[in-house]
Order: sequence, then C-alpha cells, then structure tokens
Amino acid sequence: MSRLKIGIIDTTFARVDMASVVIEEIRKLEPQAEIIRWTVPGIKDIPGAAKRIIDFHNCDGLIVLGWVGKEFVDKLSYVAYSVGIMLVGILTSKPIIDVTVHEEESEDPKELKKIAIDRARKHARNLIHVIKDPTYLTKWSGKGLRQGYPDVGPID
Amino acid sequence: MSRLKIGIIDTTFARVDMASVVIEEIRKLEPQAEIIRWTVPGIKDIPGAAKRIIDFHNCDGLIVLGWVGKEFVDKLSYVAYSVGIMLVGILTSKPIIDVTVHEEESEDPKELKKIAIDRARKHARNLIHVIKDPTYLTKWSGKGLRQGYPDVGPID
Amino acid sequence: MSRLKIGIIDTTFARVDMASVVIEEIRKLEPQAEIIRWTVPGIKDIPGAAKRIIDFHNCDGLIVLGWVGKEFVDKLSYVAYSVGIMLVGILTSKPIIDVTVHEEESEDPKELKKIAIDRARKHARNLIHVIKDPTYLTKWSGKGLRQGYPDVGPID
Amino acid sequence: MSRLKIGIIDTTFARVDMASVVIEEIRKLEPQAEIIRWTVPGIKDIPGAAKRIIDFHNCDGLIVLGWVGKEFVDKLSYVAYSVGIMLVGILTSKPIIDVTVHEEESEDPKELKKIAIDRARKHARNLIHVIKDPTYLTKWSGKGLRQGYPDVGPID
Amino acid sequence: MSRLKIGIIDTTFARVDMASVVIEEIRKLEPQAEIIRWTVPGIKDIPGAAKRIIDFHNCDGLIVLGWVGKEFVDKLSYVAYSVGIMLVGILTSKPIIDVTVHEEESEDPKELKKIAIDRARKHARNLIHVIKDPTYLTKWSGKGLRQGYPDVGPID
Repeated sequence: MSRLKIGIIDTTFARVDMASVVIEEIRKLEPQAEIIRWTVPGIKDIPGAAKRIIDFHNCDGLIVLGWVGKEFVDKLSYVAYSVGIMLVGILTSKPIIDVTVHEEESEDPKELKKIAIDRARKHARNLIHVIKDPTYLTKWSGKGLRQGYPDVGPID
Repeated sequence: MSRLKIGIIDTTFARVDMASVVIEEIRKLEPQAEIIRWTVPGIKDIPGAAKRIIDFHNCDGLIVLGWVGKEFVDKLSYVAYSVGIMLVGILTSKPIIDVTVHEEESEDPKELKKIAIDRARKHARNLIHVIKDPTYLTKWSGKGLRQGYPDVGPID
Repeated sequence: MSRLKIGIIDTTFARVDMASVVIEEIRKLEPQAEIIRWTVPGIKDIPGAAKRIIDFHNCDGLIVLGWVGKEFVDKLSYVAYSVGIMLVGILTSKPIIDVTVHEEESEDPKELKKIAIDRARKHARNLIHVIKDPTYLTKWSGKGLRQGYPDVGPID
Repeated sequence: MSRLKIGIIDTTFARVDMASVVIEEIRKLEPQAEIIRWTVPGIKDIPGAAKRIIDFHNCDGLIVLGWVGKEFVDKLSYVAYSVGIMLVGILTSKPIIDVTVHEEESEDPKELKKIAIDRARKHARNLIHVIKDPTYLTKWSGKGLRQGYPDVGPID
Repeated sequence: MSRLKIGIIDTTFARVDMASVVIEEIRKLEPQAEIIRWTVPGIKDIPGAAKRIIDFHNCDGLIVLGWVGKEFVDKLSYVAYSVGIMLVGILTSKPIIDVTVHEEESEDPKELKKIAIDRARKHARNLIHVIKDPTYLTKWSGKGLRQGYPDVGPID
C-alpha cells in the first residue's frame, strides 16, 4: 500500500483536543501518512462531514472524535450519531473508527481528559491496523482490550 | 467560491423566529449570499424538506431550526428527526447544521428565547465556516464551545 | 401546477376515521385534487405503503394517519415508524405529512377524538401548503402553532 | 393478478408455530397461492432474510413472524428489527406484514399462544388484502381493529 | 453449492475468543469451507467491516461476534450496531448471523463465558444452515430454541 491518507474529524464542543494526540500517534506508526483534519461544531455534524471528507479526499480511513453531554437528550443524539457514522462506513466501504467520550464517564475533569487522551491514542493505532491489515488485531481477539481505561483482559 | 446559496428550514411549531436571526447573521458574514427559506409544520417534516430544497435549489448548505416538546414522545421524534437529518447530509454530501431547542431547557420562556437566539446566531456562523473552509473551526477544536449557553472552555 | 394528486394512508388500528376529515378539508382548499386513499393494518405498515402509493400513483404529496398505543413497545414502534416515514420522504423527494395520535394524549375518548380530528384537519391544510408553495407557511414561522391543541403562540 | 406468491419468514426462537396458522389462513383465501417459507434463528435475522427471499423468489408480499423476549435488550433488538423490516419494504416496494409477539403480553403461556395464533391469522388475511387491493381495508379505517386481542372499535 | 466462503468478524473488546469456537464448529459441518477472520476494536466497528469483508472476499455469509458492556450508553451503541448489521445484510443480500453477549447476562465471568461459547457454537451451525438451505431450520420453527441458554421449547 502506498502512502496512507487519513481523515480526522473533531468538534469545537469537545473539551479536549484529541486530534493532536491522534496526529502524534499516527506520525509514530506511519510517518509518511497524509493527514487531513476537519472540524465541525458537534457530533451530529460528524457523519455528514465524514461523507464529504471521503468524497473530497478519498481517505483510506477516518477517525472521528466525539464528545457527548450528560443529559438524556445528549444520549439520543449519540444514538443518531452512531447510526450516521455506521451508515457512512457502510456506504463508502471505508474504515471509520469513532472515539467517543461521554461527560459522565468521570466527575473529575482531569480524569475525563486522561480517558479522552488514552482512548484517542489507542484508537489511532487501531485505525492504522484496521486499514493496513484487517487481520492484524486478531491476536487480541477476545482479550478484553479497553480504550480510555485499563484493559480488563479475557475471562480466565 | 462564487456566491453562496444557503437554505433555511424552520417550523411553525417553534415559539421563536430563529430564521430571522440566522438571516441577519448570514448577511453580516456573507452579504452576497442567496438565502432560501422554507417553512414546515414541525421537526419530522424537516428531513424531507431538506432533501427537496437541495434538489430544487442546489444549496451549498442548510441550516435547519427545530423545536422539540418536553414529552417522552417528543424525544422519540427527536431521535428519528436526527437520523433523518444525518441521512440527508450523507446522501447529498451537503453540510447541514441543525439548531435544536428542547422546551425543557428552561422553565422561563424569556430564557428559552435567549437560548434559541444565541444558538441560531452561533450556528449560522458555524454553517458559513463549515461550507467555506472545513478546516476553519480547527482553531477551536476541543475548546468546549457551546451554542445557547456560554462556552465551557477546554479542560485545563 | 396542474391538478394535485394527494395520497392518504390510514389504518384499521386507529379509533377515529381521520381520513374523512382530511378528504373534506382537501376538497375545500383544492376541489380539483385527485385523492387516493389506501388503508393498512397499523403504523408499521405505513412506510412501505407510502413508498408503494408514490410508485404506483406518482402522488404530489402524502398525508399518513397513525394511531399509537400507550405501551412502551408502542413507543418503540413509533420511533421505527417515524424513521421509516422520513426515509420515504427523503428517498422519493415527496412531501409527507404525518398525523400521529398517541392514545395517552387523553384518558377521555371524546377528547382523544377531538384531538385526532383537529390534528388531521390542520395537517391536511399544511400538506396542501407545503406542496403548492414551500414558503407559504413562513408567515407562521416560530408562531407556536399546534395541531390537536390550541396554538401556544410565540414567546413574547 | 395471476397466482400470488407469498413469502413467510419465521424463527426457531418463537414458542408458537405461527407459520402453520398463516399457511392455513392463506389457503382459505387464496387456494392457488404459492407459499415459500423460510426459517431463521431470531428477529434480527428476519430483515436480511426478507430481502433475500424477495430477491430469490420475487414474492408479491411477505409475512414475517417475530417473537420478542421480555428484557430491555430484547426491546432494543425489536426497534432495530422494526427499522430493518420497514427498510426492506421501502427498498423493494413489496408489502411486508409483521406479526410480532412480545413475551410480556401474557404471564400465562396458553394465553400467549392464543394471542400469537389470533394475531397470525388476522394478519395473514390482512396481507392478502393489502397485496390484492390496497383500498380493501378502507371499510375498516379507524374502526379500532386489533390482532391478538378483541377489536376495541371506533370511538363513538 | 461449491466450497463455502465464510467471514467472521470479532472484537478485541470481547472477553472470550468466540471466533475459535465458531471456526471449530464450521470445520465440523463444512470441512472444506474457506474461513476469513477479521478483527476490529468493538461492536460499532463491525458493520463497516462486515460491508468491507463482503466487498473484498465475496463471502457467502458472515458471523459477527459482539460483546456489549453493562451501561445505558452501551445499550444505545447496541441499537445502532444492530441497525448497522441489518443494513449490511439488506444491502448486500448476504446472510449475517450476529452472536451478541451482554455483560449483564451473568455476574459470574465463568457463566458468561459458557453463555458466549454456547451461543457462538449454536449460531455457527445456524449460519451454515441458513446459507445452504433457508428452509432447513423450519423443522424447529416455533420450538423455542435458545443460544447461550437451554432451549425453552414450544408452548404446549
């Protein structure tokens, strides 16, 4: 495979700059990769932008960085967002990894930031693996890996 | 890019004329823009109208202005509406920004109106930026911007 | 525009014959309109029928008349139904107005019937306006119109 | 219309053989109908099978027989299933009637079986009517018909 | 039918290696089958991967192995995932069987593992049957079969 082209979509709603972590991580694994970063207001704007960035730049894969509020209504937006992202992945046949942080994951902002950064970093790696070789992650199948938290490991 | 063509869809259900705020704001940023405004009864009528206004007028982007009641059933309509709007954005590859006000956001009608106007104004700007340059908002990535409320800012 | 062709889909599940009200109302506004009425068992049968009535009769627009039970499961059917109806509107680019009555809107059957009739009548008018001129309703944008209940009016 | 071709999809998850009731009922109304019956494990397998049975056999219509557990997760599967079935109906323009039994409809298995059989029988008739003449059921529009339970009748 | 080509998609999030059980079971029923196994991080990555594995390998059918956390947000992801999987099945007309384990199905990890293995094994068989002969499972229609638990049997 020639030089990878990776799209990143993040939001101004998020409270952590996850994209910078993602870019740093991609640079480690794929120093040659071309990275295109677009920014939208919030999660409901991501699926459309994901479709357009693929249309315009023919990316090999995307990572999308969502931040979701605590309210019930935010959770409903999250469902619609998730359906939208899956639909773009299905219609374009391009890998899209979503990094989603839910504000209720921690009361402590520092902790929330740590979760966001860890999740973004690990999923940046996941995206590269999924694009380059969809069998690569099989060595960790069923191993209880987590992003944002420590791995829980397999049962037994 | 030549003269922008912006579509607006609002509803008779809403209790605030958000479209006028949107038009005022677009006029400031893009005095030449052609603005087309359609009105439907309620949020469930918006996705179809969004598709038709793009078909008929080939808009460069849309802003849709929804108002959602307080009941559980209204929230279910909101989910379906959100999926519909995302679907139109994905199928047409046109940016669509939604401004949604939920009636339970404030008990006080004056406050609710303030939320609606602030959200409409800020998202009108967002739409212009997203259409003209999808990398423009990157300077505020992860900055905790809010529409309808004061920005919360980034963590740290 | 020549003679309008309006499709109506209603159900045997409903407890009020809303279609007759719709037809009466359409006749007032558009005496020449051709009206095609199909009936299905319940709301989950409406989206498919909506697609087929457009395929077969090339209607200019549809009004669909749903009746939803009180149970949680009925509400889940309502979400799926709403997504389905929006999808038909998006895929066919035809205006579809839905009139939905939820059984819990009133304990009193007489009151429920009044709600259903008022909603059907007002939305029949809405459909004609939306088909003939999508800017027609703009004079009531943000005016807090309601169907099935009295208008609440704009804030301020 | 020549000889009808009806598809039936049922599940091994269900606790009542509703398809046999459906076949018996179709035989009464349409003795010449060709009936094709496919079986899948559970409701989430039905939409795909519905698409394939239409692809392979070009059925004039389908009846699908779902059985849904009591848990919250089962209800979420039901929403996804309902969206899936509607999508197949919309994309293929073929009538699809779903008969869905929810386990919590009765604590008493005998009663649950009665509900399932009554619902399957009545909807088998509905399917034939919807396929042969989409205006046929209009005589019962708004009449409060129920499947699985006694009709509740119209209001007034 | 010539040599079957079966796709498997599993996750690194899961805590049990269900794919190995699936492969073992497929080998028993279809020793000649070609098996392609891809691995993604979590359930929301499965629908896109399912589409791509069909695009790339033209599989005759897929089995997808999901593991869902206990939180409300995980359940919302499950709904979106389920819609996504059904959509891939509908758009590609390929049988896709999903094996989903919900962490709250047992407090006891050993028990959860037993559920996962039993479910994976039984559904591997189901997939082969559904691909080879969609009428094969009819002998168990309405028989109350369960995967992950003992069969409950038909009513009466």
